[in-house]
Amino acid sequence: MHKNRANRKEALLENIIYGRNSVLELLKAGKRTANKLMVSETARGTTISEIISLAKQKGIAVHTVPPEKFNKYSQQSQGVAVEVSSIEYIEIEDLINQSMQSSSKPLLVILDGIEDPHNLGAIIRNCVAFGADGIIIPKWRAVGVNETVSKASAGAVEHILISKVSNLNQAIDLLKENNFWIVGAENGGQRLESSELPFPSAIVIGSEGFGLHNLTKKHCDFLISIPQKNVISSLNASCASAVILYEVSKKR
Amino acid sequence: MHKNRANRKEALLENIIYGRNSVLELLKAGKRTANKLMVSETARGTTISEIISLAKQKGIAVHTVPPEKFNKYSQQSQGVAVEVSSIEYIEIEDLINQSMQSSSKPLLVILDGIEDPHNLGAIIRNCVAFGADGIIIPKWRAVGVNETVSKASAGAVEHILISKVSNLNQAIDLLKENNFWIVGAENGGQRLESSELPFPSAIVIGSEGFGLHNLTKKHCDFLISIPQKNVISSLNASCASAVILYEVSKKR
Repeated sequence: MHKNRANRKEALLENIIYGRNSVLELLKAGKRTANKLMVSETARGTTISEIISLAKQKGIAVHTVPPEKFNKYSQQSQGVAVEVSSIEYIEIEDLINQSMQSSSKPLLVILDGIEDPHNLGAIIRNCVAFGADGIIIPKWRAVGVNETVSKASAGAVEHILISKVSNLNQAIDLLKENNFWIVGAENGGQRLESSELPFPSAIVIGSEGFGLHNLTKKHCDFLISIPQKNVISSLNASCASAVILYEVSKKR
Repeated sequence: MHKNRANRKEALLENIIYGRNSVLELLKAGKRTANKLMVSETARGTTISEIISLAKQKGIAVHTVPPEKFNKYSQQSQGVAVEVSSIEYIEIEDLINQSMQSSSKPLLVILDGIEDPHNLGAIIRNCVAFGADGIIIPKWRAVGVNETVSKASAGAVEHILISKVSNLNQAIDLLKENNFWIVGAENGGQRLESSELPFPSAIVIGSEGFGLHNLTKKHCDFLISIPQKNVISSLNASCASAVILYEVSKKR
């Protein structure tokens, strides 16, 4: 990985669109999915206001950042940049429909706030390797599928459907309406190896530091946990997802 | 993770000892384990020669690097720095003895060239969580247990024995003399879920990009592989180790 740092930085920049008109046109066209909008603290003017209001309207996260952040993008950034996704996200309704068409007991993975792009990339690899039908990520307080994620996934992002939703709990309700069981990964849940999931299921993986949010946990039908010999140490989110998907996929 | 970048950099620097006399004294004392010695291309003098020859004698990797590399360490680096481990490594003979005393079928993990510190940290977490008795890492072309690894392990480095060896294949021979079975993780091996390991075992995990080295593979008694639904995508090294250790630990 370290050897390609220069290449990676270039690739990363390819995913950033900057400059007031370019950003405005991109948001208006709505063809490429924007992960987040970055606006310099010192940027002012009607175009900037228009960009911010358009981004908010479309549910894109707006980050106000110090002007130095823009040094790396050349003068032409004009204090505004948008990070576009390296993939096309799919609507949650379409993800549910497509997964139900492809399997009688589809398996989805819900990520409750993964912030580290390398973890997200590794989880996407696990999902593809173990045959999950799709992934649901939140729009807020989580990393989107940017170029770093794409690289960390070793190309796996191209082989799975990913939906990005404004409200994870609404997405869970929609899944329940479609007969999915919602299964949270959490210490203290029933032991993974005795958990059969012979029905449409969505497994919820918590964030790196904090596990599942309380509200998300309440939305789960039941919890499963990975048996450990030694509880001094926990697994990181991507390793936990690998073990759970391995065990679930083995039984199906 | 991102929030603590400044803290992490500080912590990283704590693990670097620089300056000709400090480095020389550290190597002479031999109390803290040195991961690698960095010498500026432009550094000259009898102390530098003495440091390099002492490092080589002790089997510490010597890296000649451009003088700019030392800018971050202040003027006092004098073109020489040594990265010390955040843990004390254990000799391979002691690791074998201690693991055999603690279990009738000890489980060790051999890492065949993991270069990414976050991967190494995650693997150490997995080893502790699933009750492995120790880890063997190579001295060359692999990351040592530095502060980044320690942090990525979420403290798990404190709870497992780690041995760092000059020659992985000699270590494997020594394990075999002590009745350990050497089990390589490699695509095409026997299916993990049907692999019982009811004997002293050392599982060999390959590097991120290249899997097991050919020579290491030849030293393995047999190979196991993780069944995947979709071979387009492979697992990263830490996720693969999590799945293998989970399955092996479950059966023991």
